[in-house]
Amino acid sequence: MQTLLLVLDLCGTFVFAASGAAAANKRDLDLFGVLVISFVAGNFGGLVRDVLIGAVPPAAISDWRYLAVSIAAGLLTFLLNSVVGEILNFVLIFDAAGLALFAVSGTQKALSFNLNPLMAAVLGTLTAVGGGMARDLLLAQVPTILKADFRATPALVGAVVVVLGQSTELPPWQVAIVAAVIAFGVRVIAIHQGWSLPHARKH
Amino acid sequence: MQTLLLVLDLCGTFVFAASGAAAANKRDLDLFGVLVISFVAGNFGGLVRDVLIGAVPPAAISDWRYLAVSIAAGLLTFLLNSVVGEILNFVLIFDAAGLALFAVSGTQKALSFNLNPLMAAVLGTLTAVGGGMARDLLLAQVPTILKADFRATPALVGAVVVVLGQSTELPPWQVAIVAAVIAFGVRVIAIHQGWSLPHARKH
Amino acid sequence: MQTLLLVLDLCGTFVFAASGAAAANKRDLDLFGVLVISFVAGNFGGLVRDVLIGAVPPAAISDWRYLAVSIAAGLLTFLLNSVVGEILNFVLIFDAAGLALFAVSGTQKALSFNLNPLMAAVLGTLTAVGGGMARDLLLAQVPTILKADFRATPALVGAVVVVLGQSTELPPWQVAIVAAVIAFGVRVIAIHQGWSLPHARKH
Repeated sequence: MQTLLLVLDLCGTFVFAASGAAAANKRDLDLFGVLVISFVAGNFGGLVRDVLIGAVPPAAISDWRYLAVSIAAGLLTFLLNSVVGEILNFVLIFDAAGLALFAVSGTQKALSFNLNPLMAAVLGTLTAVGGGMARDLLLAQVPTILKADFRATPALVGAVVVVLGQSTELPPWQVAIVAAVIAFGVRVIAIHQGWSLPHARKH
Repeated sequence: MQTLLLVLDLCGTFVFAASGAAAANKRDLDLFGVLVISFVAGNFGGLVRDVLIGAVPPAAISDWRYLAVSIAAGLLTFLLNSVVGEILNFVLIFDAAGLALFAVSGTQKALSFNLNPLMAAVLGTLTAVGGGMARDLLLAQVPTILKADFRATPALVGAVVVVLGQSTELPPWQVAIVAAVIAFGVRVIAIHQGWSLPHARKH
Repeated sequence: MQTLLLVLDLCGTFVFAASGAAAANKRDLDLFGVLVISFVAGNFGGLVRDVLIGAVPPAAISDWRYLAVSIAAGLLTFLLNSVVGEILNFVLIFDAAGLALFAVSGTQKALSFNLNPLMAAVLGTLTAVGGGMARDLLLAQVPTILKADFRATPALVGAVVVVLGQSTELPPWQVAIVAAVIAFGVRVIAIHQGWSLPHARKH
């Protein structure tokens, strides 16, 4: 189970890092810039979560595999730039998987550090969307997730399921699977249906 | 006393969160974006202070009331967008109160973690102005406080009074009141007189 | 030796803070803004490193000299704005020295907190380039180091030398000198030869 989680976590990191690298290429960053954005997009959410709950050094710093996977994704995207752009449109499905997984694993980690359930769900959501926000900020843009992307809501739904599941008698790994499947499903339906959140009415 | 401080702290969070939501509405963020900016504007200064002094998880994460107040302020501003813009001009006075309070409570918390007096005053000022800076950065703007707002100086004055007061025989809560009143007064006078800091001469 | 390192560290802080202040003046920030950017440019890399490895409060917060040196550099640059612009072109050599030193001292500090060698080198590089990145972000710009500056590579080279040197029988201070000289040399040659990193091919 632990190994499965790690593998899934690294898969999520890979997908997010590749999407970061693609955005960096679009802005014509150099190789170093691309790799920095890759690492940040793949790991920033978890990094901030770990710093806030006092789990230092964060996993993304103490375990070299997160860096290795991020750099591999960044290099691959850097070298195959024209190809990756095409592929990424197909891998929205992978992005949805990464989102679901990060939300679930982030919430579980926060709960294991004795945070109250509400804030654990918030930190789980932050784990899922923090990397993309930091990627946009490094590119001097307002994070798209604050304006249009319907990605935070599926993450939050998954995080809430984890929190609710904790008070049942189900073992954590079953809760994790159910929560991830639900978050993934909500995200996929949202893409398909073009869901979005409301904006405030203009003056 | 402890309860009074908490209430005042939450009032400051509410005012700052509402101002963050108003700025987010102006940039046409969606509901999630508005709530994120609300929380960040109301809590980021204290969050960074707590991480830097080692008080993790930070109060804004471990105590759900900060999130609840931030979301309430964000939702209210989101729903009453046209009204709130008008009101906010009237509540510069509340903003001044929030600023004074955060500067004082931030400095006292830093001192209680045994920081040296100089850095405690700096962290107190950061507590007061950090939320507004992060709000602007998330909106991809140079923080206005770095360019024009005369808000850091009143906060710093209040923080210095707290530090100086510590070496007197006055009880902390009396020092806090005096410091907050002074910071508040300087801010209100600054608004009224249109004070600003100098800029470097051009080349 | 300890004293020498501190002096060199403060020199690096001074140079980076001055470069931050010059950039802030160019964007017409006010005095507070200039001093904030000075402190951030001189200390942000080390601050983040310390938070990530759990060394809180970070040295830049617990030791008042870092703030004092940063403010001195910021004030000087603020007052002598037109002069400093000219001088800074001459002090690329000092910037290279600061870069080399921060990379070395940052890596050694990370190693002393038992990080694995790979991540220690990464954090050493972050120490060297983090301040400049944060300076650019506060000015709402994509960090130049992600697009063009050839500064990360010399820092990384120096950091790797520190890591490799640790497994030899050389005393740490000799390793530090060798690593700093190499990083400094690579940076100076890079400036002279106009080296840059590759960019991804366009679609």
